[in-house]
Amino acid sequence: MEQLKLYDTTLRDGMGGRGMSLSVGEKLNVVRALDALGVHFVEAGFPSSNPKEAELFERLAELELEQATIAAFGMTRRRDREAADDEALAVLVTSFAPVVCLVGKSWVLHLEKVIRVSREENLAMIADSIGFCREQGKRPVFDAEHFFDGYRDDPSYALECVRAAAESGAENVTLCDTNGGSLPQYVGEVSAAVVAAVGDGVQIGIHTHNDAECAVANSLAAVDAGARLVQGCVNGYGERCGNANLASILPALQLKMGFDVVSAEQLANLTPTAHYLDEVCNLASDPDRAYVGRNAFAHKAGMHAAGVAADASTFEHLDPTLVGNDREILASELSGKATISAQAEQAGLELDDAAAARAIGKLKEREHQGYHYEAAPASFELLLRQEAGIYKPLFKLESYRVVTERRAGGRVETEATIKVEVDGERYLRVAEGNGPVNALDRALRGAIADRYPHLAEIELTNYKVRILDEAHGTGAVTRVLLDSADGTREWGTIGVSENIIEASWQALVDSLEYAFQ
Amino acid sequence: MEQLKLYDTTLRDGMGGRGMSLSVGEKLNVVRALDALGVHFVEAGFPSSNPKEAELFERLAELELEQATIAAFGMTRRRDREAADDEALAVLVTSFAPVVCLVGKSWVLHLEKVIRVSREENLAMIADSIGFCREQGKRPVFDAEHFFDGYRDDPSYALECVRAAAESGAENVTLCDTNGGSLPQYVGEVSAAVVAAVGDGVQIGIHTHNDAECAVANSLAAVDAGARLVQGCVNGYGERCGNANLASILPALQLKMGFDVVSAEQLANLTPTAHYLDEVCNLASDPDRAYVGRNAFAHKAGMHAAGVAADASTFEHLDPTLVGNDREILASELSGKATISAQAEQAGLELDDAAAARAIGKLKEREHQGYHYEAAPASFELLLRQEAGIYKPLFKLESYRVVTERRAGGRVETEATIKVEVDGERYLRVAEGNGPVNALDRALRGAIADRYPHLAEIELTNYKVRILDEAHGTGAVTRVLLDSADGTREWGTIGVSENIIEASWQALVDSLEYAFQ
Repeated sequence: MEQLKLYDTTLRDGMGGRGMSLSVGEKLNVVRALDALGVHFVEAGFPSSNPKEAELFERLAELELEQATIAAFGMTRRRDREAADDEALAVLVTSFAPVVCLVGKSWVLHLEKVIRVSREENLAMIADSIGFCREQGKRPVFDAEHFFDGYRDDPSYALECVRAAAESGAENVTLCDTNGGSLPQYVGEVSAAVVAAVGDGVQIGIHTHNDAECAVANSLAAVDAGARLVQGCVNGYGERCGNANLASILPALQLKMGFDVVSAEQLANLTPTAHYLDEVCNLASDPDRAYVGRNAFAHKAGMHAAGVAADASTFEHLDPTLVGNDREILASELSGKATISAQAEQAGLELDDAAAARAIGKLKEREHQGYHYEAAPASFELLLRQEAGIYKPLFKLESYRVVTERRAGGRVETEATIKVEVDGERYLRVAEGNGPVNALDRALRGAIADRYPHLAEIELTNYKVRILDEAHGTGAVTRVLLDSADGTREWGTIGVSENIIEASWQALVDSLEYAFQ
Repeated sequence: MEQLKLYDTTLRDGMGGRGMSLSVGEKLNVVRALDALGVHFVEAGFPSSNPKEAELFERLAELELEQATIAAFGMTRRRDREAADDEALAVLVTSFAPVVCLVGKSWVLHLEKVIRVSREENLAMIADSIGFCREQGKRPVFDAEHFFDGYRDDPSYALECVRAAAESGAENVTLCDTNGGSLPQYVGEVSAAVVAAVGDGVQIGIHTHNDAECAVANSLAAVDAGARLVQGCVNGYGERCGNANLASILPALQLKMGFDVVSAEQLANLTPTAHYLDEVCNLASDPDRAYVGRNAFAHKAGMHAAGVAADASTFEHLDPTLVGNDREILASELSGKATISAQAEQAGLELDDAAAARAIGKLKEREHQGYHYEAAPASFELLLRQEAGIYKPLFKLESYRVVTERRAGGRVETEATIKVEVDGERYLRVAEGNGPVNALDRALRGAIADRYPHLAEIELTNYKVRILDEAHGTGAVTRVLLDSADGTREWGTIGVSENIIEASWQALVDSLEYAFQ
């Protein structure tokens, strides 16, 4: 199989995403995770005078990596000076990083409107800078910024820029769709033209952005046309709509296009790596993400579930375990006994026929009341545990009271009181909160914290409420969905009641109990 | 320019997304929004015996739409029976919907493993069912399920299925990448082969899923190959990784590929429509989404901003106003002074320049706090009225208190106390409710009912809550959206606060005040 290299720019271009901010230690964790996944190049940023970046490069120099090569990023020399006199290039070539990536212009519009440099001087800036890095013992990569826009306006000048980099010693020239608006057919055609023109002398790379929701397809189109290095970010981090998502590109290249990119073991680490990186970046993992999302291999009950049971390829584009993901069968009103049993098995529960039948009965009754277990698999698992006879309640509730008051001065205060029993012992607790659910959560945790210290690690990450006006026979009810996480797992629970406070309470109790099953 | 049709399946395939659940009223709102955007076909679901679906189709039949045609969805007849004797087909053809979309098999693996039907019988099922719908005066669309997988295994049989539909009267045959794993180059090649084989006799459509993060590119590849109808969902709702996102496909077709799809005015409504649909579905709008995301045209300071000032095309793939988005960090359809004035005029208000400027300032401040006026036009009108100096508060609040208590016996009770002033007179009232918002609503109405008898006609019809964890600088806040009606009008209001009770209170007060302006 043909070789192809991945080049992750999370720590440089990915950091342009809104709210992205990582400490040096977190950046090192990102590098380790990318290395373990089998990413070939990790762009670490600008090795500049900034003390944080300097510290990062010092610590990177000492890091032992399996296979990843660290790339330092910079730009072509400033105009009208020697490359050897350019301070930024001097920092780059003295960095330990074996690969140096230099970004430069290839779009005439930018020469005219942005940097005001002549065509000739721009070509000299590219050639001098790449040549200087090569002389200094570096492996230079040239990022041709705005290449696809430049090629549209003036294909021969855009090609001259690529040629200037290739002829002065670039190991790779990467064509960048910097504004992200190109479509795959165009990216494929232009990439093929560049490979035909200069592909004998230099490896071609591709760097795309997702502004047209085509970053993955654009990368694949360039590979089809002969590009052999793909720049992007696992999870598609980055400014605006993000960089190309390597977590979607890698499995397509390896499982669908026949390239040899990483080992099968590394590929099977894709889903945990993607979730781990989200965790490091403090971002919620999109459950609908291709290949690695929690929903990516979730099947509705009924015909889908039956088909998957007969032959998974009927309803799955690939085996989820190849990318480290799991198949999930969604609970729903329509579930049959087979689906319930499959669910139970996945949760490590043994459910006999009678218990499965009881679980179906309870499921139907609950869904009629307005429960919606597809969105709350943890609550569903608790229901199965009850029917399997292995459910352990955390505590016994005696009563709670929540008071929210807006005082005469406009100040809003909330307080919750709770009375519970654990192993025959009674606990009373009061707590304040920024809202009723928060106050209840604090009071409950306060009451049982001594018994369950792991509670401190559980965080409520999302909370949604809907009023169901459908006629379920019981009038309007409130449905609360709660997402929780403890650093390693994420789970969803549900509560349904006429009263939003009581519905929230149910979802909250399920959330905490699930963590202890 | 060549014509191309959009076919939105939010209300059918989109409802497979985890947690998607819409009332009949919300579904009608989705249809109205899609119609206003210029979507040509809106698939509304199965017009089945289910009373909720029956009600939807009844109300759809009465709905006045600008241009959208409603499609009803079903499947080819059951095996070994006449199409005329198939109960599901009978329901379809008696529905008012002019277009009937029938899904059927085209993958031999599914015939063998899932439905256990012979190749011949499957062809007969397609031909009979399409022919029957045509005879009954419907415009049939055939959705060839798993077409791209089927074509890979047995191209001639897959084509026979398409031909069977075309020859028996299908207006369109849509090729479905049901499992979502195909890549654009393959989709383009296969689509071209189908267009070459049967494209003279029938229009070809495309229906893709995002399991390889290529749904948009796959749709565009099929269009490049000659498909002239694109199925998908605005915002890409749907099970697993979602359906093809029409909000990304539409601008690519119209602005980048030269098709005539909707009017320029309709296209400029894309961003607000996408955000509105997310609100109806109670989903957070992804800020990084292509074209319509809050970050999609956000620029970093420095060179980018300077470049944009010199010539926006240097750093933007298209003018954001063409898709109703905004270059500002804070994306809002309302942020221009002209738009504000137009809104005011629409509400019958006169707003001078200074008042319009103040309104913009307040709007930006509020949106920064988490308000989202697109989904709450009544609250926005109140804001404009305040700036126009013609806002009349119903009452002056002194304080409120809400207590929710779960007693030792398990009974849940809620009580609200309120102290307000109307025209210098003080009113105290206590009321019970089935939840805190209901209790507050009753207490408030009780307190001011004598002054405002029309209050009795106002009904709260919907209530939605979401926690916003986006970094607004103020930490997590709760956003409440409230829909109200008084028999002749319907209106939406909003409240935002750390505290769900206070946020609900704001939305409630806006709701009642709006009714009296």
